[in-house]
Amino acid sequence: MSQTYVVIMAGGVGTRFWPFSRTNNPKQFHDVLGTGRTLLQQTADRFEGICDKSAIYIVTSEEYKDLVKEQLPFLDDDQILLEPVRRNTAPCIAYATYKIAARDPNANIVVAPADHIILKEEEFRSTIRTALQATDSHDILVTLGIQPSRPDTGYGYIQYLTESEGSVKKVKTFTEKPHLELAQQFLDSGEFVWNAGIFVWNVKSINKAFDTYLPETAEIFAEGTPYYYTEQEQPFINKAYSQCKSISIDNGIMEKANNVHVVLSDFGWSDLGTWKSLYEVSEKDANSNSTDGKLILYNTTNSIIKTPKDKLVVINGLDGFIVAEFDNVLLICRKEEEQKVKEFVADAKEHGTQFV
Amino acid sequence: MSQTYVVIMAGGVGTRFWPFSRTNNPKQFHDVLGTGRTLLQQTADRFEGICDKSAIYIVTSEEYKDLVKEQLPFLDDDQILLEPVRRNTAPCIAYATYKIAARDPNANIVVAPADHIILKEEEFRSTIRTALQATDSHDILVTLGIQPSRPDTGYGYIQYLTESEGSVKKVKTFTEKPHLELAQQFLDSGEFVWNAGIFVWNVKSINKAFDTYLPETAEIFAEGTPYYYTEQEQPFINKAYSQCKSISIDNGIMEKANNVHVVLSDFGWSDLGTWKSLYEVSEKDANSNSTDGKLILYNTTNSIIKTPKDKLVVINGLDGFIVAEFDNVLLICRKEEEQKVKEFVADAKEHGTQFV
Repeated sequence: MSQTYVVIMAGGVGTRFWPFSRTNNPKQFHDVLGTGRTLLQQTADRFEGICDKSAIYIVTSEEYKDLVKEQLPFLDDDQILLEPVRRNTAPCIAYATYKIAARDPNANIVVAPADHIILKEEEFRSTIRTALQATDSHDILVTLGIQPSRPDTGYGYIQYLTESEGSVKKVKTFTEKPHLELAQQFLDSGEFVWNAGIFVWNVKSINKAFDTYLPETAEIFAEGTPYYYTEQEQPFINKAYSQCKSISIDNGIMEKANNVHVVLSDFGWSDLGTWKSLYEVSEKDANSNSTDGKLILYNTTNSIIKTPKDKLVVINGLDGFIVAEFDNVLLICRKEEEQKVKEFVADAKEHGTQFV
Repeated sequence: MSQTYVVIMAGGVGTRFWPFSRTNNPKQFHDVLGTGRTLLQQTADRFEGICDKSAIYIVTSEEYKDLVKEQLPFLDDDQILLEPVRRNTAPCIAYATYKIAARDPNANIVVAPADHIILKEEEFRSTIRTALQATDSHDILVTLGIQPSRPDTGYGYIQYLTESEGSVKKVKTFTEKPHLELAQQFLDSGEFVWNAGIFVWNVKSINKAFDTYLPETAEIFAEGTPYYYTEQEQPFINKAYSQCKSISIDNGIMEKANNVHVVLSDFGWSDLGTWKSLYEVSEKDANSNSTDGKLILYNTTNSIIKTPKDKLVVINGLDGFIVAEFDNVLLICRKEEEQKVKEFVADAKEHGTQFV
């Protein structure tokens, strides 16, 4: 079997998880669950036994380079890929795969975001191994599909051919963020899973797909082959990104390619996109509160409270709220209105860039 | 006319105003209204034109001596009276009046708590002058009475003889913290005012009252006459307080003496006993919020929010809450349940004395 590489996408900003997720310190660099490891560290840890540490590549921004090195000190500089600007996931993945291909043209690659929560790590690894076996011997693009538990309108949905055997299923359709009624229909049909945004493929398959569906992007990063792993890589990349169009891997390839498969998965996944998604995966106290901090709660229910450990927080009479403090920003918000957090961040910016 | 002295009682702890009021830094030492002056400073400022700065005496605890000196640098050490233990207002007032009497046996004295808010300072001074004129020529004990605006059950009520002329009225009865129905009856009758706890008297009158109604206390502090303004004062006082019983001036004298008068007053007074009382006297925004801090409010009404100026606080969807942060303690509490703050403080103590 080909060697396995892991590409961790760690360049996001994650404004919906504000005030924890901040421009200069986004959520992937936080110990969100209070386990002692940041989301980025947990993501890297998760691949132990799947690939060697020297085969983990992190794609991030120049501004987060020091955070990445600090949190994952085993990385060589060659394993940290710095995007000069954000261009969504397709260029990010193209950069990593063409760089890996330059050294190992048979690489099997797992692409994973740095800011997801996965509660059942052993089941995750087992799922990844299933996918790697499939992509090692077949020219297919694999995405992991999560059994949906509710008609969530914030996720992408994948319809698959239920008749095919095994847990690797051929994909029929992709649907991004359906409205509630449609999401409910998807759920009821039993033919849909959530798109986890975790991909597995052989470098030959994905680069062929780039050639076919995003030929301009493919050409840009293929040209870098002589420069990867040299001092000329960063200057080349800085120039390459200025020519790249911004597009997601889903829009650019997954929704178009006809060799996409999904591995049905159930490993306690959350994309941790929002406060509510953290609330969903967190342990709750007897009053259904998810708590992290030095807290005294009276008559407080269904809330998520995450405050600095050295501060005493006394709350009386909140039901269904987010109370979150980080780095000189305190947010108190009805949980049901968390979609407004993006708007809050925009308004907060007017008070100073240190708050966003 | 006799010279006027002002005694400011600044030894209280004020737990109901937690987390602002803290054992090591009670509310009288805070700039509660955000005016740039603390309550103690405002109290002293208020007597400009009434008495000389050298005739202002502060009674406080040893632990607050430095705070007092820092906030009122014009004070000589002789003007700062240090109680070794808290024994309620009667010993506090006895100490100050016997000390003043030792130097000026004809002194007119105003006694005022350090933690009240008075919005109309000119009317306050005018009221004080009226009281001083009355006590200068008559052997009476004067307290200031506030026209009640609501049936507040947290205040003391004074019934006065409505038939007497002028604004200095003879007092009939005192009633501490009546239940709501009684408070409403008091309000309806038009014969009652709130007891502001601000007293005016000649030193001869108050000391005669001590002799009559609290003879033990009188004896203890009269014995100190040779020691006041000497190095032996503090050792004497430390011993005296150990012999003193704890009693309020209201219980000990005002409710018993038959020469008590009240000056009807209306100067925008609040005893600032609780968060709600601060809310009552504060300016409110269009949504009836009293705010102090760097705030962005959405759909937030009838709340009092007081947070550190360097912290950005974003609130969505609170109605009728207290949100208060000071020195590493954050309180979020329904305004209607503010009477529970004392209970919170007791529970907070278990997390460390730095929080109370």
